[in-house]
Parts: sequence; structure tokens; C-alpha cells
Amino acid sequence: MADSTITPRSEDYSRWYLDVIREAQLAENSPVRGCMVIRPYGYAIWEAIKDGLDRRFKATGHQNAYFPMFIPYSFIAKEAEHIEGFSPELAMVTVGGGKELEEPLVVRPTSETIIGHTFARWIQSYRDLPLLINQWANVVRWEMRTRPFLRTMEFLWQEGHTAHATAEEAIEETMQMLGVYEEMARDDAAIPVIPGEKSAIERFAGAVSTYTIEAMMGNGWALQSGTSHYLGENFSRAFDIKFLGDNNEQQYAHTTSWGVSTRFVGAVIMAHGDDQGLRLPPKMAPIQVAIVPIWRKAKEEAEVMGLANEVFQTLKQAGIRVKLDDREQLSPGYKFNDWEMRGVPLRIEIGPRDVKQNSVVVARRHLPGKEGKIFGVAVESLGDRIPELLQEVHDGLYEQALNFRNENTHDGIEDFDTFIHTAQDKGGFLKVYWAGNDEDEVKIKEDHKLTVRCYPRDDQGGPKGRCFYTGKETDRIAIFARAY
Amino acid sequence: MADSTITPRSEDYSRWYLDVIREAQLAENSPVRGCMVIRPYGYAIWEAIKDGLDRRFKATGHQNAYFPMFIPYSFIAKEAEHIEGFSPELAMVTVGGGKELEEPLVVRPTSETIIGHTFARWIQSYRDLPLLINQWANVVRWEMRTRPFLRTMEFLWQEGHTAHATAEEAIEETMQMLGVYEEMARDDAAIPVIPGEKSAIERFAGAVSTYTIEAMMGNGWALQSGTSHYLGENFSRAFDIKFLGDNNEQQYAHTTSWGVSTRFVGAVIMAHGDDQGLRLPPKMAPIQVAIVPIWRKAKEEAEVMGLANEVFQTLKQAGIRVKLDDREQLSPGYKFNDWEMRGVPLRIEIGPRDVKQNSVVVARRHLPGKEGKIFGVAVESLGDRIPELLQEVHDGLYEQALNFRNENTHDGIEDFDTFIHTAQDKGGFLKVYWAGNDEDEVKIKEDHKLTVRCYPRDDQGGPKGRCFYTGKETDRIAIFARAY
Repeated sequence: MADSTITPRSEDYSRWYLDVIREAQLAENSPVRGCMVIRPYGYAIWEAIKDGLDRRFKATGHQNAYFPMFIPYSFIAKEAEHIEGFSPELAMVTVGGGKELEEPLVVRPTSETIIGHTFARWIQSYRDLPLLINQWANVVRWEMRTRPFLRTMEFLWQEGHTAHATAEEAIEETMQMLGVYEEMARDDAAIPVIPGEKSAIERFAGAVSTYTIEAMMGNGWALQSGTSHYLGENFSRAFDIKFLGDNNEQQYAHTTSWGVSTRFVGAVIMAHGDDQGLRLPPKMAPIQVAIVPIWRKAKEEAEVMGLANEVFQTLKQAGIRVKLDDREQLSPGYKFNDWEMRGVPLRIEIGPRDVKQNSVVVARRHLPGKEGKIFGVAVESLGDRIPELLQEVHDGLYEQALNFRNENTHDGIEDFDTFIHTAQDKGGFLKVYWAGNDEDEVKIKEDHKLTVRCYPRDDQGGPKGRCFYTGKETDRIAIFARAY
Repeated sequence: MADSTITPRSEDYSRWYLDVIREAQLAENSPVRGCMVIRPYGYAIWEAIKDGLDRRFKATGHQNAYFPMFIPYSFIAKEAEHIEGFSPELAMVTVGGGKELEEPLVVRPTSETIIGHTFARWIQSYRDLPLLINQWANVVRWEMRTRPFLRTMEFLWQEGHTAHATAEEAIEETMQMLGVYEEMARDDAAIPVIPGEKSAIERFAGAVSTYTIEAMMGNGWALQSGTSHYLGENFSRAFDIKFLGDNNEQQYAHTTSWGVSTRFVGAVIMAHGDDQGLRLPPKMAPIQVAIVPIWRKAKEEAEVMGLANEVFQTLKQAGIRVKLDDREQLSPGYKFNDWEMRGVPLRIEIGPRDVKQNSVVVARRHLPGKEGKIFGVAVESLGDRIPELLQEVHDGLYEQALNFRNENTHDGIEDFDTFIHTAQDKGGFLKVYWAGNDEDEVKIKEDHKLTVRCYPRDDQGGPKGRCFYTGKETDRIAIFARAY
């Protein structure tokens, strides 16, 4: 049975994650250490993420382009913090066409440098700004400890790169794209995320400020699910991205970059999955509705399959991604479990009694067992009803994730002792007043594996309170958590 | 003026090609030798090619997946012809995370090996077949002489990889995908192509047979625009892709692979472009309609812009990719040339007289000057008329390309002397009876740069004729041409 091979989350969350990925055929290890094969069912989720983002990027005036994957090593070295941050993670091509290269080529870990170099050529005047570019690409970071989707040596992502005349416009863009990520997470993936600024030590190498969307996974850990960086003039100065302003003076552009990667597939798995397996948000589900016919006798089969085919055609014509499970030699019970494990939002069951009543049973994946079932759904209503129910599953998944996050977010913590005990006993997000410095933050990270996930955007600027660590008064709120 | 910087095709076709790419901002050289930057206007054409192919792949039952870009060197070496073919072109990663690697990793030049290795894991029984996979990816081949889109070190492509129970099914798939390419070229790109089999020496390294679509460029040269390979058991045996047949016996799968790359953007440029610049097939044009308002006095401006905005909204709502050119400081004449150079299929001109008549002038890019203009097109008819005219431009471009190919295809050649003189004096495609062997073919290639483009599928099996080279009787027809 499909579900018997998935470790319960409470027993071992990491094994549960790997079990789900294997059983639902999302991805698998490859012969190249740290690189995964993304299987069709997993890739279809990534395609849904891509489509949702690409549409929103274009609607906000961005254009796609493509830049070389190989970057001269000297480029990476031009921005001091950038090289410091990425140097330990680089893959280098040293031989091409059978010959040793004069200068090694870096396989891009991110493209600020090569794109910065190109922007310097494209931008001459304020009329060339803003320049709003996005790239869909693969990138490589030499990671030692990898985990499918969450951290792999090669991964797929989009990286937006923009240039603006002023700091204000660049910061506005940085926040706009953070908002786009927040919206995609909420409206497409049914994942509530916390947008906020990263602390100095968690900043992107070379950024003035980094913003993030943080999501809570099913074990209470945080997953950084997308980031947006205001790069100030750091890369403009390194790559000489200058323009003649309308005041007739040469000035440096202000740039941004922002990215979401295949890591987000991991967020979808862990934000929603349960002990039966995946639970996919309807907009991202490769299969939104699975139809399982049920019969015993040959006479029943003809009737049941007749109705099942009719329902299949109705839904297909309504633009729904529907699958009729006509596999032989498998019991309906096995099929139920199988589609549950694969996270299909709605299952339609059709038996001989349903044929008589010209109705079907619909099971909603976000509610367990009987609770999720709706009996006697009239066949003629399905064209309208199924889209409604898909929206209901979307809303249900979102609400459950939000409730779970709220239940596992702890505030009112006023001293370090309570902070540590809450983390150990309850886990989840610790929402605290925070006035510590970089060293304090590093110490907490090293001693307790708790990191500042972000300064949540919507919680800043309220009444002051006491930092649990330094005892200082502050109005800065931080979220600490264990994180992937 | 935009057009003054484009070299006429008759003067220097290669320079014309590079001029068009530069002026229309399709791509540019990068600081990494042999790698190009694909600019937004060029990338949008690639996106149209992708969308057209991806839709057709899915309609024929294929699924997308993603495999690692890095391949252990030992994998590449497993299939003897494959390593021989690709060995001189490999880029190798030898350093990762600051350390020398034990086994160098090859940056994929194509993925038969890593996908073959994976297929061996996925395929156990005849029930797992056919396995129909496609990948969108970047690949690297260490080329010494590069030319934007046509031949670059890194390029983007799709590579389909499928496995089948029998040779017949695999060959059927190979031909089906060749047909998909033919259809995309004809229906989306307005390019007539000649489908056919490659000669032995032009075969993909490791294939049993290679099929191609060959298109004629504006200088009469051929461009191989897509290929589809029947790989027989070559890769199954190298990677042990075996299955238990319904006869209960272990057998090797038969595999195929097929690909179209960013090279196809080059085909679009060269199949249709003229001395004014690009001429884009409407389905692939990032901008299908450009509206140019014309006025002299401020009073006229208000009226003209009012109508221009109305037309813009009408077309936008009709789902047409439309651009209102409201750039200041540029004359209408400059704008006309600019949009012509960028290959926009339809230009709408709106002046004060048009406002009075509530009509517009439409210029069709595939017909020069006055001939292409339609005067007095009623504004209220545009929602219907523009889609019709876009189809007319598509059909016109296709017909012109087909006529050009027919005019430049020479047959009835019965001796080598005529063959060489026709090639030198007239160029184009030489459609001949061919009974030569591999050595003959290599000699003609080395001495005269003429290669067998394909044995055209639709011309085989007819009456016999005399080979112009060997004098032997044969029913095999071949097309020889200069090629990119």
C-alpha cells in the first residue's frame, strides 16, 4: 500500500519529507552528488510556480532575457562582499575543448556580476531607466549537505535584476517584488508567508538590505521562500552602471535583485503535507481531480465507466486537470490512498448506486476521511461545483496553514531562559523584541541553531518593549526560529 | 536612421545578419567568448518558439522533467560513437567548492547519457513504456567559430527523450516529433521546411538514424532547424535500459531523442528578413501591431492621440500584442522605419484625416511600401480585421519563403560539372539523384563546402535516375547545399 511506506511526521519529519518525495515521484537523487533529478510530477509543480510568477512579472513591466551561465572569475571578484560570500561555493570550468583555460570560468551561483556588466552597456541616460529584467535559469552552489528541493548543488530559479535612477525607486521595486512573491505564495500556493527584512548577518552578499518571505513548515521550522534585495550602488560602482541624469550629471544607478527557486516546491510539500502524503494547492496540482470508478460485476463496470467518462469529459472541457483512474488490478481502496498520497485536491468516486442517482461522491483532500466527503453531488452540477470546491480546498489549506502558524508562534517572551525553553519545548516561531547586535545573533545561532528569520514588515513601529536578550528597550520585532 | 546601419543582403549577407541582430536588439556578444546575451526582444521570440513546442509536446503525451547539468565523464564515455563525437567539444568542471574533483564533471553537451542512466531505473516492465520525457535546458559545446543564435558555446534548447518497447514504436515517435517540428515551423514561424533523413556522416553521434527539418535562408544556404533521432538499442545497451516484456523476457528498450534550440531564432531572422531588417511571423512577434500617431499642431495631437488610444484599447482587449508609439522627439518617418526594422507585422498609422473619417491606415510588413498599405480601414472593423490581416501576413511570409525556395532549388542535374557550376552560379538547394558513398560525400564537402542536407522524405521511392557523381542508377534523392 502506498501510504504504508511514508514515515509519520511525528516520528521523523526528515524521513517523512524524503518518503513523500520518493512515493509521489517528485524527485530523486542523481549519480552526481548533490544534484537531483526532478521527475515529471515534481516538475509540473515547478511549472505552476513559474507560470504564476512569470505572469506577474510581465504584468509589472518586466521582460525576460538570458545571460551566459559562465562568468569570468574576475567578475565575481569585483564586488568585495559578493566574492567573500560566494567564493567557497563556486564550481569552476578549467578545461574547454580539451585545453586548459587561461582564466577559469565560474558556473553562475547568481548573475549580479555578468548582468551588471551588461547593464553598464545598456544604460546611458535616465531615459534608459528603469531597466526591468528577469531571467529563468539554473545556478550552481557547491553545497556539502543537500536535501531535495531545499538545498541542491544545481537548482532552477528566476532572478530578477533591475536598475533605477534613484534609491527610492529601487527600494520601491524591491518591496513590490516582495509583494509579488507574497501574493503568489498566498493565491497560488495557499501558503501564508511573513514578509520582512533580513538581519545584517543574513543579508545577501553585496546587498544593502535583503527582504524575505518566511513560511512555517509542518514541523514548525521556517523556510526562506523568496528574497528581494536592494543593492544600492554596490554593483553599479563595481560594474560602472552610470547614466546621465535629467540634471545632466553622471550618476550611478541603484539596482535590485530578487529570486524564487525550486526550493519553493519544498515549501509546498512541507507547508501542507500530512501523514498520508502530499496535499497540493489546487492551482499548482498537476492533477486537480482524480476520478475513481468502483464496481464488482461486469454489468456494473459498463455503467460506472460510462458515467465516469462523461464526468471526465465534462471536467476536461471546463478546463480542469482531471484524471480518470482506469488502472486494472488495483482496488478502489488502493487508488484512494494513492491519490491522497499524491495530494490531488479532489477525488470523485463513482459506484453503481451513484449511477442510479446520476450523482457522485466528492472527497476533499484538506479534510480527513468522512469529514471530507460530500455525497450525492448531482452530475449536471459538476461543471460549476468542481471549480467552487477547488477554491474551497485552496482556502481550507491556507486557513489550516495560517492557524498552524498562529498556534506555533510564541510572543510575550521577556527573558532568555523562557526563549530557550519555548524553543525547545514548543518550537515554532519566536516573535520577540530584539536589540541584540551581530555577535549576539551569531552566538544564539551557534549555541541553539535559532536564527533571525526576519523583522516582520507588518509588526514594526509599534509600542516599545524589552529585548529578551539585552534587556534594552526597542521597537524592533524579530522572529527567531529553526530553519532549513 | 535605423535602416541606414543595416548592410544590404546582396552586399554582405553575414554582415546583414549581424546588423539586424544588433539594431533590433535581439542579442549581443558577452564577455565570455562564444556566449551571447539574449536580449528581451530576441528572448521573446524564443519564448514563442518554446510555447508552440511545449503545447504540442504535451498534446502528444510528453511530460517535462529536469536532469542534472553536470554529467560524470565516465557516462559520456559509455557509448563509443557518442564520446567520439562529443569529446572535442566538452567543457569540464574540475574544481568545486575550492577542491579538485576526483572525477571531472562534464557540462552537458546533450543529455542522452544521464537520462539513459535514469531511464534504466524508471523502466522495469513493458507497462512502464512508452516513457515520453522532454527537458528545457541550457547545453554547452566548446565551439571555436560562433555566430549569434546559429552556433554559440552555450545555447538553450529542448531535448526530448523517449523509450519504447519496439523499434517500430520508437521510429514512429521519431517521425511524429519530426512532424511536430515541421508543423511548428509552418504554422507558427511561417517557414516551409524539408523533412528528411540525414546521411550517415551527418548523423547524431550514437544514433541509428537522424531526421532533420532543413530550411532555406535568404542567401540560399540551408539551416538545419531541428533534428529527431532514432537511437535503436545503442543507449539502452550502454546504460542497461531493460524491461520485462509481456512475453516475460528481458529486452532492451528502443530510444529516441529530438531537439530544437535557440538556433531556430536564427532561422526566423534569415528565412524572412529583408534589407529593411526583420520580418517577424505574427505568432512569434513580441509586438504584432505598432500604432504610429501623426500630427503637426497641438490641436491635432489631442484628436489623433484620442483615436490612437481607442484603437490601442480595442486591440489589446482582442488579445493582440499591440504597442502605441508615443515617443516624443521622433518623426513618424523614423518610427515607420524603426518598426519595419524590428519586423512588426502590422503598422497602424493615424493622422488628422483618419480621425475625421474614423478610419486608419494599415501597413503590412510582408509587402513593400505602398503595396503593403491599406487605406481607410474603418475603426469599428479593427477587432475583426486585424486578426485577419495578421493571418494574411503569416500566409504571405510563408508563400514568399516557399516561392524563394522553389526558385532556388535546382534539379535535373546529371553530371558533376553542372552540379558545381549550378552551386557556384546560382547557389540554393541542389536536388539530385545520389548514390555516392561516405567518402564521396566527404570529398564534396571538403572541396566545395556542399553537404547532403537530407534525403527529403517526400521525394523518395519515385522513379530511378542517374547519380550525378557516380553515374549509378538510384531512386535516392538528396539535397546538397551550403549550410550554417
